[in-house]
Amino acid sequence: MSFQPADPDFEARVRASFGRQGAMTLIGAQLMRVEPGLATIELPYRSDLTQQHGFFHAGMTSAIADSAAGYAAFSLFPAASSVLTVEFKINLIAPADGERLVATGRVKKPGRTLTICEFEVVAHKNGKATVCALGLETLICLAGKPDA
Amino acid sequence: MSFQPADPDFEARVRASFGRQGAMTLIGAQLMRVEPGLATIELPYRSDLTQQHGFFHAGMTSAIADSAAGYAAFSLFPAASSVLTVEFKINLIAPADGERLVATGRVKKPGRTLTICEFEVVAHKNGKATVCALGLETLICLAGKPDA
Amino acid sequence: MSFQPADPDFEARVRASFGRQGAMTLIGAQLMRVEPGLATIELPYRSDLTQQHGFFHAGMTSAIADSAAGYAAFSLFPAASSVLTVEFKINLIAPADGERLVATGRVKKPGRTLTICEFEVVAHKNGKATVCALGLETLICLAGKPDA
Amino acid sequence: MSFQPADPDFEARVRASFGRQGAMTLIGAQLMRVEPGLATIELPYRSDLTQQHGFFHAGMTSAIADSAAGYAAFSLFPAASSVLTVEFKINLIAPADGERLVATGRVKKPGRTLTICEFEVVAHKNGKATVCALGLETLICLAGKPDA
Repeated sequence: MSFQPADPDFEARVRASFGRQGAMTLIGAQLMRVEPGLATIELPYRSDLTQQHGFFHAGMTSAIADSAAGYAAFSLFPAASSVLTVEFKINLIAPADGERLVATGRVKKPGRTLTICEFEVVAHKNGKATVCALGLETLICLAGKPDA
Repeated sequence: MSFQPADPDFEARVRASFGRQGAMTLIGAQLMRVEPGLATIELPYRSDLTQQHGFFHAGMTSAIADSAAGYAAFSLFPAASSVLTVEFKINLIAPADGERLVATGRVKKPGRTLTICEFEVVAHKNGKATVCALGLETLICLAGKPDA
Repeated sequence: MSFQPADPDFEARVRASFGRQGAMTLIGAQLMRVEPGLATIELPYRSDLTQQHGFFHAGMTSAIADSAAGYAAFSLFPAASSVLTVEFKINLIAPADGERLVATGRVKKPGRTLTICEFEVVAHKNGKATVCALGLETLICLAGKPDA
Repeated sequence: MSFQPADPDFEARVRASFGRQGAMTLIGAQLMRVEPGLATIELPYRSDLTQQHGFFHAGMTSAIADSAAGYAAFSLFPAASSVLTVEFKINLIAPADGERLVATGRVKKPGRTLTICEFEVVAHKNGKATVCALGLETLICLAGKPDA
């Protein structure tokens, strides 16, 4: 799907908002692509991001998936607005095992109030890419409440 | 519901596994109660755990919810086994705004292969407790694969 | 939780709306309790409601769960409004095997726009009650759009 | 993705199982395509399949989505096995308004025990196709338990 953003400065607005997410800085996540209705976030491996077997913790996978979906939605929102996650569902379909994870959020249904996104998280290991998580997320637009 | 754990040393096994989760140490989460079919995890507020408005990031809320549900399930598993999250769904029903979050995971349906848990995350602020997230999670038991 | 309905005639409004759901009539579902923030729906067994092993089809279980959650939410909505399901998640934790199913929807978080409910479906067989499904559902209120 | 079915007679096995689902006959659903890892189910409009506004009831949409995902998974299972739905999540992203719905289930991750599918439901109206629901579903294979 291709989308026409309501705010021509959507990319700067998304990147500024991501920069205010303390949690993304803590875990070392980086916002890569920002396009109308799409965002990708990369998370390099660190031993302090793991669950008990040394793979990425499902909470870390979820954190970048949630932010990727949230910013995919936020890219289409009007300038003076905020985004909140209403809910999401994630299936962890393979171990999150690799040098880095890349989460991609994509808008499937934009809306004035609710926007529905899907996300996918890929684990990159030794040049091989494996989808390790899939999900669906519902976001709400708080119109008239600037994000900053 | 009241459950009879298969492993009398379930609490030590759960606490040791939690201790190996690098992500829980990174974010400052602490494992509080561990009972048959139940676990609670506390997460004190820090500015590096936040989303763009200064509340706890949904990924951090999800991380402790996932671990609480996982260890609620793991408490009922046999001694030589591991737990993996198959999937979860979370509704973020109020801002995760407070001095600390407390996630509680509870087994709703134990099973040899799959165990289903519900979780709840409460935000504590100025002595007031507000449920900020609710969810359901499916866990799988890897029998014969010790966690350590 | 106890709720104060916005519309004193909530029960008549809910029952009239249920009466307009052709699908509930087709499958033989009956609306039982309607209270502020709560609704229960009963579905007696019929062989034409089954999946391939003779138990209730997950779609039938979902249908009454969705309607129970929807009417739990709708009971708290203003008089001139409609309810739509945004999304739900259901875990089928035991075979839906019995003479009848009873679905209960409960509001966990009422809201002007979004209302979050949980639901539970119980299978009754030979005097024994078994929870066979659990779920969470998000509903939206269309204010100013009467249901009829 | 392209899959190699374990059972060369997968299509006959899937169609026979669908034929035993009383609920699919009741609502008038028809199994269309059956391919390795994919199934589509069509549901023509009838006024007794509706919710209170005359659109397809979310439970009916869910019923065909669940069966489509289940049979997509079942197509890859061994001959002597059964399939059960563990859980699913559905987002209803547009009114299910049309002359017919078509649900497509696709395997995203096959497995010996668990298989993860995504599904999509499209409403066809006056020659126009609109995606009205999206979801993810987890299925379990009961090996050694023939479906019939």
